[in-house]
Amino acid sequence: MFTFQTYVRRRDELRHLLQGGIVLLPGNRESAANYTSNAYHFRQDSTFLYYFGLNLPDLAGVIDLDSGEDVLYGDDFTVDDIIWMGPQPTIAELGSWAGVKKTAPSAALQGVVQTALTQGRKIHVLPPYRGETELLLQSLLGRKPEVSVELIRAVVSMRDKKSPEEIAQIEEACETGYRMHTAAMRMCRPGVVEREIAGAIEGIAMQYGWGVSFLSIVSQHGETLHNHCYDGVLEPGRLLLVDAGAEAVSNYCSDNTRTMPVSGRFNRQQREVYDIVLAAHDRAFEVARPGIPYRDVHLEAARVIIEGLKSLGLVKGSTDEAVAAGAHALFLPHGLGHLMGLDVHDMENLGEQYVGYDAEIVRSTELATKACRMGRRLETGMVVTVEPGIYFIPAYIDKWRKEGICKDFIAFDRLAAYESFGGIRLEDDLLVTSDGSRMLGDRRIPITPEEVEEYMQRD
Amino acid sequence: MFTFQTYVRRRDELRHLLQGGIVLLPGNRESAANYTSNAYHFRQDSTFLYYFGLNLPDLAGVIDLDSGEDVLYGDDFTVDDIIWMGPQPTIAELGSWAGVKKTAPSAALQGVVQTALTQGRKIHVLPPYRGETELLLQSLLGRKPEVSVELIRAVVSMRDKKSPEEIAQIEEACETGYRMHTAAMRMCRPGVVEREIAGAIEGIAMQYGWGVSFLSIVSQHGETLHNHCYDGVLEPGRLLLVDAGAEAVSNYCSDNTRTMPVSGRFNRQQREVYDIVLAAHDRAFEVARPGIPYRDVHLEAARVIIEGLKSLGLVKGSTDEAVAAGAHALFLPHGLGHLMGLDVHDMENLGEQYVGYDAEIVRSTELATKACRMGRRLETGMVVTVEPGIYFIPAYIDKWRKEGICKDFIAFDRLAAYESFGGIRLEDDLLVTSDGSRMLGDRRIPITPEEVEEYMQRD
Repeated sequence: MFTFQTYVRRRDELRHLLQGGIVLLPGNRESAANYTSNAYHFRQDSTFLYYFGLNLPDLAGVIDLDSGEDVLYGDDFTVDDIIWMGPQPTIAELGSWAGVKKTAPSAALQGVVQTALTQGRKIHVLPPYRGETELLLQSLLGRKPEVSVELIRAVVSMRDKKSPEEIAQIEEACETGYRMHTAAMRMCRPGVVEREIAGAIEGIAMQYGWGVSFLSIVSQHGETLHNHCYDGVLEPGRLLLVDAGAEAVSNYCSDNTRTMPVSGRFNRQQREVYDIVLAAHDRAFEVARPGIPYRDVHLEAARVIIEGLKSLGLVKGSTDEAVAAGAHALFLPHGLGHLMGLDVHDMENLGEQYVGYDAEIVRSTELATKACRMGRRLETGMVVTVEPGIYFIPAYIDKWRKEGICKDFIAFDRLAAYESFGGIRLEDDLLVTSDGSRMLGDRRIPITPEEVEEYMQRD
Repeated sequence: MFTFQTYVRRRDELRHLLQGGIVLLPGNRESAANYTSNAYHFRQDSTFLYYFGLNLPDLAGVIDLDSGEDVLYGDDFTVDDIIWMGPQPTIAELGSWAGVKKTAPSAALQGVVQTALTQGRKIHVLPPYRGETELLLQSLLGRKPEVSVELIRAVVSMRDKKSPEEIAQIEEACETGYRMHTAAMRMCRPGVVEREIAGAIEGIAMQYGWGVSFLSIVSQHGETLHNHCYDGVLEPGRLLLVDAGAEAVSNYCSDNTRTMPVSGRFNRQQREVYDIVLAAHDRAFEVARPGIPYRDVHLEAARVIIEGLKSLGLVKGSTDEAVAAGAHALFLPHGLGHLMGLDVHDMENLGEQYVGYDAEIVRSTELATKACRMGRRLETGMVVTVEPGIYFIPAYIDKWRKEGICKDFIAFDRLAAYESFGGIRLEDDLLVTSDGSRMLGDRRIPITPEEVEEYMQRD
């Protein structure tokens, strides 16, 4: 597991990647749900966790790039706090866990920032994503924070490849994901309300770790990509899509999707589409390796989908031309996947142009690849999700038909038979190894149609 | 259930309670956990819900006190949104659900506020409790928001008494609370990790409603009043305290506490203390009625606790004098309870001096009652929690001993035998009726020692 040396080493490495000034990393505060003291389950900022490893609110870290000194800011508990919160480590103790020798009260942070400003030193901050952090930075800096692209690039270059210890944490989250998804498969049957399954799997995520890595999608409307409405009652003949993941107590994430027949057996139409999505999923694992742009892996999956849909008569013409034109985007309007780590969309707050793209590969505006969150070349140690899907989205099909998008490739007249189909997505987590890839998770969540049907029989 | 007429009537009533100007009620936005698009489970602002009933993010309501017009601000979805979020109601439709005839895009809000400011009209706002709301108000008003005490008083005077429809929602949350607490009793046994129970009951809250009404306390350290650490492994001979509640889908809350013996049977020492807490709990239900200050109900419970602790030899001297001196506060360092409704601590964000106290009864500085969140007179329709407890908090006992607090009443030398006792709290939800009180919830969570021990045998 991670020790204080892990954090010392990471901060030293960061120091070597940057020119000068100070790095100001505020941890998260409690986040109020409906009044100040009724907070959501505390989630630490992932970058603060990565460099300091402390999973408590109201801390801040300063990494001095010139003096080499790191300081942890926070306040010790009082006896009154102890009545409410129990005995707590002191800030000095927290500092020692993080390998930080110097600690100071939160109130001292203002002076340090002001001094650095007066001296004209660069203050490196990351983009805030919570109102509380934005207000804190405004108050410390006396103005709207200016984000440090240099810091973003340095952080991405470190966090984007995972160490063996990090992989072990992700695999722990995957194990909880296995429990969640197999529980959903056992519960899925006509008459059950989506909410009952969503609640059960969220409970499992919290039983074995921090909780869910994102709000679960549990929906018969798989064609609605981010559906957080759980009111549907499961109906025979339909498909249930479950996209859910866990965070380990360390906050490393998992993310998987399975799609299952409410009746317990796929009908022929469902099975045909399912087989195509599964083939695209498997193809991505075959081709992923260090050096290949993830955008190309996306296109490989798109090709499998186009070939498959051609066999069903829903797409026509040359596969190469259809993929180049982006015909698959009608059915797969999102990218193949994203980096995953301490965030389920890893480092998404730092900006996609730095995380999923780079100087060589920028986000495209072409239909075939414009939806990709991640396009750049894979490197050993990266963890990405592989999540192809085929959806039949009535409003989107209407739009394409009306606007004549890809009309030479799409057999619009044949799509009527799929109007209430919904959607299928299959997702697993991929580690880029030195010579290829491997799927993360000790136990594989049932995925072949036979495995899924068999598993759904269990109680 | 609530209809659009409910909201029209409430807004009209509010208008009659205020002098003039506009009421600006921003609904909540999504709240980011670890990056902007990874939000916590959406929780609407309770006051916005009360007056507009719309449980979606990024809305705002304006109640014009002079013209009598209400306007709902928000933005319609685009086709791209529909791909991700599914078909959504238009703002005009949402307006009709809320009984609001006029709707406008969010961008129009700035102009309305600026016009009102220019005209010197009063803009009534409530205290923000999220950074995002504070930033929005700053941006709309061009300055830090000034809270309207007039609006706070008017809102409290309406929300503090519950209608039959509201009571029905609270009872629904109580039914989920029953499922949660009885699940905990069935799971509680040596070797189980607190987290496994916490996760299971959070899952149940989400299966049957919105989720938990606050972060559950599931702890063998009952003496730590707000303990959100779930790492403990249950040990024979100890007590497990479970303080947990649910929110119905409508966001009305429940809040109950039970304390159970990990071994399945209370030992003699535990049973003696348990019986005192239960007697204090029952006494509160006996004396609660319209017109009695809740502070006096607190003191009634304190008296039962002092009498009981005297019988155990832990307190000595006159009961009247011990209660007056606040000797019970060593064992019960919190108040007897709080209002409950759309927030589990109802309207806590509006300020305790307006919610739990009033012009007649202000928060005391005396040890006997200073911890009470709620002191004012009960009125028919109010819902309060009743949650007496007895805790043995080593750090707090040390403090009292050293400082000689209540040294004539506390038998400090006898407390050593309770050093690792932990704490017991028992909590139910009370509706003030026209002539007394009744406990909310159709099914009562096992509470007598016999009931608890019997229930813990079940699988």
